[in-house]
Amino acid sequence: MLGITILGNNSAIPAFGRHPTAQIVTVADELFLVDCGEGTQMRMSTFRVRQSRITHILISHLHGDHFYGLTGLINTMNLLNREQELHIHGPAPVESVINMHLALANTQLRFTIHYHTNPAEGGIIHQGAQVQISCFPVTHRIPCWGYRFDARTGRRKLLVEKAKSLGIPAEFYKKLVQGHDYENPATGACIRNEWVTEPGPVPPSYAFCADTLFNPAIAGYLQGVHTIYHESTFLESEADKAAIRFHSTARQAALLAKIAGVKCLLLGHFSSRYETLEPFLEEATPIFPNTLLAWEGTTFLVRPTAVSKPA
Amino acid sequence: MLGITILGNNSAIPAFGRHPTAQIVTVADELFLVDCGEGTQMRMSTFRVRQSRITHILISHLHGDHFYGLTGLINTMNLLNREQELHIHGPAPVESVINMHLALANTQLRFTIHYHTNPAEGGIIHQGAQVQISCFPVTHRIPCWGYRFDARTGRRKLLVEKAKSLGIPAEFYKKLVQGHDYENPATGACIRNEWVTEPGPVPPSYAFCADTLFNPAIAGYLQGVHTIYHESTFLESEADKAAIRFHSTARQAALLAKIAGVKCLLLGHFSSRYETLEPFLEEATPIFPNTLLAWEGTTFLVRPTAVSKPA
Repeated sequence: MLGITILGNNSAIPAFGRHPTAQIVTVADELFLVDCGEGTQMRMSTFRVRQSRITHILISHLHGDHFYGLTGLINTMNLLNREQELHIHGPAPVESVINMHLALANTQLRFTIHYHTNPAEGGIIHQGAQVQISCFPVTHRIPCWGYRFDARTGRRKLLVEKAKSLGIPAEFYKKLVQGHDYENPATGACIRNEWVTEPGPVPPSYAFCADTLFNPAIAGYLQGVHTIYHESTFLESEADKAAIRFHSTARQAALLAKIAGVKCLLLGHFSSRYETLEPFLEEATPIFPNTLLAWEGTTFLVRPTAVSKPA
Repeated sequence: MLGITILGNNSAIPAFGRHPTAQIVTVADELFLVDCGEGTQMRMSTFRVRQSRITHILISHLHGDHFYGLTGLINTMNLLNREQELHIHGPAPVESVINMHLALANTQLRFTIHYHTNPAEGGIIHQGAQVQISCFPVTHRIPCWGYRFDARTGRRKLLVEKAKSLGIPAEFYKKLVQGHDYENPATGACIRNEWVTEPGPVPPSYAFCADTLFNPAIAGYLQGVHTIYHESTFLESEADKAAIRFHSTARQAALLAKIAGVKCLLLGHFSSRYETLEPFLEEATPIFPNTLLAWEGTTFLVRPTAVSKPA
């Protein structure tokens, strides 16, 4: 299971009780913070997010509404006696910004931060036991990256009767589920894993597409992803503004979801000019029906998907 | 009249719905923002503070809970098409921090910011039509300044009967109230202002004492001030912690108010270890009775004070 908890769904100017971008991606017992707009630590407190469980922070780009809460959060982690290492991924200058603020405040952190600069062309940035994370470039006014999460459940489905009939001892079933072949210790004969298992469910996957101009090429990075969050700063009636400011409309977000063949689209990063958000849904759903508004405080769950068997 | 609107009254870690330091000082139609902790722009929106009316921002020191909301606020002012100049006072590095953030975001401001570095020893930093502002050094872990506001109502009280008896025409009364002498155009005789007026009420005054170790010398900067805001991060039971961290206790804040001879004390900058704040009042009032907790969202008014006449 993978969860996405929305802490902020608004664009640059906080408005109508909506906040700048931040969201928590939960995989197993690990939390990943994606972007950290001003006030994120307060939003985490409002929604009872345990910041001590955050292991990685991923920053998409250096516009204030995506990272002005970062140094404050690090400060608070420090005041709360964090000792666990923290990984921060994003544009190169993040490190110098944090270090400058810490120096001005004469603050020595109790914990270590590992900074990882995103490769310009994207790529895998984290290989964890539970999840693989990659970044991909999007099209914005300044360098900007989206992030893709692929959970690794990686377990195969055991065909018990077949395993039994081939004489594999029950104590080896766990290894079979993990994908190992069985070698008969007496005869040396090998029983290939795929003879006694079939593919398990597809692990959940999610991509945060950051701030971007509508760019169909982004779909290339989203192959096989279940759920995406795509910005829709504007409605189509303001498509010109969207283009000038390197943002997207709800219609464009839906189009991108359709092209990428994902299963679910979350819309967010709404301009402060919009008080009500229903028009975003109305615009997107005719193109991509399974569209949801990324309400703040809501956690969206992505479950493993059963593989459909050939008829 | 001078108003102090509390936007944040907590110390470093936001807690129990309390926020990092920020307050608005209102004099006539001008707003002065004192410190700008993370989330200040949202607090201004919550309490309907019109940020367009802010002419000066005063930063006490470069700990995050006092200025991490500053660049975000400037960004929002820019997005809201501010054209009016803005003055920012504080430690020298404020300018480079803002400029670095703007450069990283590739943002050109539509309005001009004038940066003013506080003199180390303090002094007058603004002489406006309505108010004079000075800064004064306090005793903290890094360079830190408090700010003193002296409103200038400056109007004298007209003694109508005396003015009449000396033959001053009624159309000159307004000038008398403003402090001018009267010269008889026919005779050239001068009627001194103080013969026909007496001192008007004392204009309101206020001082924000920032983050500081208890330091009786600060009272020297507060002579004649009506109301002060003094930090009380801790209660006296944690006086050791207060000293180590260059903060004060409620008792020490009360003592300072007493030494300075002010009329009213506002307590704030509470540590996140305290859920309820009444113990701060209980500790301070035996020493300085007219103590108030600086509740967020509250505006404290300081009125002109009538001068007591000699018996």
